[in-house]
Amino acid sequence: MDVFTAMKGRRSCRDFLPEPVGRDKIEKILAAASWAPSPLNLQPWEFIVITNTNVKEKLFSEAKRCIKWILDKTGWDWLKTYNADFLKYAPVVIAVIGDPRKTGVDMFLEEGGAGYQHACAAAIQNINLATYALGLASLWFTFFEKDPVREILAISPDKTPIALICIGKPNGEILQIPRKDSMKKTTFIT
Amino acid sequence: MDVFTAMKGRRSCRDFLPEPVGRDKIEKILAAASWAPSPLNLQPWEFIVITNTNVKEKLFSEAKRCIKWILDKTGWDWLKTYNADFLKYAPVVIAVIGDPRKTGVDMFLEEGGAGYQHACAAAIQNINLATYALGLASLWFTFFEKDPVREILAISPDKTPIALICIGKPNGEILQIPRKDSMKKTTFIT
Repeated sequence: MDVFTAMKGRRSCRDFLPEPVGRDKIEKILAAASWAPSPLNLQPWEFIVITNTNVKEKLFSEAKRCIKWILDKTGWDWLKTYNADFLKYAPVVIAVIGDPRKTGVDMFLEEGGAGYQHACAAAIQNINLATYALGLASLWFTFFEKDPVREILAISPDKTPIALICIGKPNGEILQIPRKDSMKKTTFIT
Repeated sequence: MDVFTAMKGRRSCRDFLPEPVGRDKIEKILAAASWAPSPLNLQPWEFIVITNTNVKEKLFSEAKRCIKWILDKTGWDWLKTYNADFLKYAPVVIAVIGDPRKTGVDMFLEEGGAGYQHACAAAIQNINLATYALGLASLWFTFFEKDPVREILAISPDKTPIALICIGKPNGEILQIPRKDSMKKTTFIT
């Protein structure tokens, strides 16, 4: 698939078919992730590929707890109908874990120490694009607290769960959400 | 260009030819950036496209100051020969600016408030891939402090310069830096 087609066509998917995702596709997706750039090529990512129903159920419970907590705090109406069911029903959830010690020189800089997270986010975008190019869809999910997810997935306290990426075949077509014209967000210094 | 070819073939470039980059390519690259996903589709990015020689020189000076400061602090040998000349010689530098107010619900979460940075990093990866697909090369540069760059580029204090992306035609072939086998960084929970 053409790279521009992939970038523009990719959608966030919240409704997946139960059909399993083959191991070959998972391997292609994670190889793509690993081609992302990172500070000093430290490759600060690790992946946990979750197909186990009980573990997905636990991640769903944590998301539900989080949503309720933020609804109570903010009263935001849209959260009342927000349902993170896709964590249960996506055939695969990939947890992307970052290592804060692999952040490069930005650890010395003011407001620094986020380089490892940026690299993980670039790897996640590669996951999104690879997934779409393979005829699947994905959701970049971050509506959770770190410690409960560390506990569910047995992640050591010195590593950071950056996101849960739900992957599977989309159930029907996904509406394209528009973007603001990038030229309206751009200044030129010539 | 095929999306997997782009992800695997993209290289970080530190040596650019002076040849200018056409406005049409810049627009394509930034349109690609804006197709990245973001929390609640808040699109927390802005772009400053710098071709002005004086401004690039100022960014170079800030990077040099930063490199010297970290060399003094750490004594890391490799920093002695590290030269950020590409900030001067790249025909275009794109500053990617993030808006911390557009971070979504993670602003309420422990260790949260980084969602806007993750979205900017995904947009940067789209910039890298689009650049490469257009026959150019890029460098994702973050070796600077926020405040001096805010001052050089007249960015308001409530926004965050996430990265400077150098773009141009590469001067010669760039060596591919290997990656660890992604399967060695992956655990399966089945």
